[in-house]
Amino acid sequence: MKLLNQVRIVLVATTHPGNIGAAARAMKTMGLGRLYLVAPRYFPHEEATAMAAGADDLLAKAVVCDSLEAAIADCKLVIGTSARSRTLPWPMLSPKASGEKIIAEAAQGEVALVFGQERSGLSNEELALCHYHVQIPCDSEFSSLNVAAAVQILSYEIRMAALSKTLHLPEDVTIEYASSEEAEYFYKHLEETLAHIGFLKPANATILMQRFRRLYQRARLEKIEVSMLRGLLTAIKKGASDV
Amino acid sequence: MKLLNQVRIVLVATTHPGNIGAAARAMKTMGLGRLYLVAPRYFPHEEATAMAAGADDLLAKAVVCDSLEAAIADCKLVIGTSARSRTLPWPMLSPKASGEKIIAEAAQGEVALVFGQERSGLSNEELALCHYHVQIPCDSEFSSLNVAAAVQILSYEIRMAALSKTLHLPEDVTIEYASSEEAEYFYKHLEETLAHIGFLKPANATILMQRFRRLYQRARLEKIEVSMLRGLLTAIKKGASDV
Repeated sequence: MKLLNQVRIVLVATTHPGNIGAAARAMKTMGLGRLYLVAPRYFPHEEATAMAAGADDLLAKAVVCDSLEAAIADCKLVIGTSARSRTLPWPMLSPKASGEKIIAEAAQGEVALVFGQERSGLSNEELALCHYHVQIPCDSEFSSLNVAAAVQILSYEIRMAALSKTLHLPEDVTIEYASSEEAEYFYKHLEETLAHIGFLKPANATILMQRFRRLYQRARLEKIEVSMLRGLLTAIKKGASDV
Repeated sequence: MKLLNQVRIVLVATTHPGNIGAAARAMKTMGLGRLYLVAPRYFPHEEATAMAAGADDLLAKAVVCDSLEAAIADCKLVIGTSARSRTLPWPMLSPKASGEKIIAEAAQGEVALVFGQERSGLSNEELALCHYHVQIPCDSEFSSLNVAAAVQILSYEIRMAALSKTLHLPEDVTIEYASSEEAEYFYKHLEETLAHIGFLKPANATILMQRFRRLYQRARLEKIEVSMLRGLLTAIKKGASDV
């Protein structure tokens, strides 16, 4: 299934190499082949190979990156896994809805599903790089889901969505979304400009930038909107510089 | 959830004790607590305990049986996992349908979901003890699903079926959205400010305002975001007026 080739699984700062191997095996059983590793603690490693149990071709062609930003730079849709609700609410998908969304959008471009470090999960900063969060509804008294088990469940839902032939076409067929990299350039531009005009101050900069990011990530910026917003930022700075 | 207490997971002739532990962990994350082991090769075993990672209470109270017949004797519904179609056709369920069936029948009595030995799966004789078979739709070129991973997927579907009755998404509970009127005041404020700094010109004003409106309507503005954006507009205008 070609759509599955547009999907990458990104593991961030994985501590145990065995989990990387088990995740590769989980992916491969569901027809997913593209593994990205952000700053893995040990890789390559014999435990990863052992746990892959025949999925070692995924390990051989895994892409190792220094940062999550680099791993998702060319992605149009990024979904992050979150073990619990955060202080900052974000658009939340069920595992099934995330599988459907991933498959619906894989036809348009690259899609990433991101998993955090074993103990701590994704940080708030990493979650803020995502358009949606997905939460696997674990038992509240024991939510210790192994990362490869989480990869298994979500890969399964992606596969089920791909297999379902009753999929409705995405409503936004012709929309060209901004890539994560383009969005990041915009956020940087926004922060600089707001600091320049004195709207951002040391005391409020972090929370305000978080709010802006949350708003625009939720909307999922299109390419043309990023151009427009950056044009506006340039106009704002020019006005302020004329003072 | 009481219905989950009516469900037992039965592992037949498991070879690797680590898989028993990983299966217990998978079950517990999904709220399932009752593990039955038919003639396990090694049990109890330190590898099982290590892989259970906090679900060792399930191992401690696991029921060890000599035969599958004994493990399912008091069950009203028995579903067996099957990696492939057999010569003997049997009523076949999808993972989702099996979760729904298990929860629907758990109200009536004891239910068992049975997993075979790692390499060979359930034998034809064992499958013939089941009312239904369930098959996880793996990739045909790599169907090597780990038994604990299979337990994870099917336990997940059981949990999803149990939750579906009472599930409401915690998504927007605490979010206070802006009213349409508040949004309209913002759009008016935006238009005035952008015209003031010369970003909106007669030639592009209509299309740009349409684009801004589409972006912010899509995001569904919250009250606090409208305040922030209007604060920014005030700062922008002030900067420009100082010229």
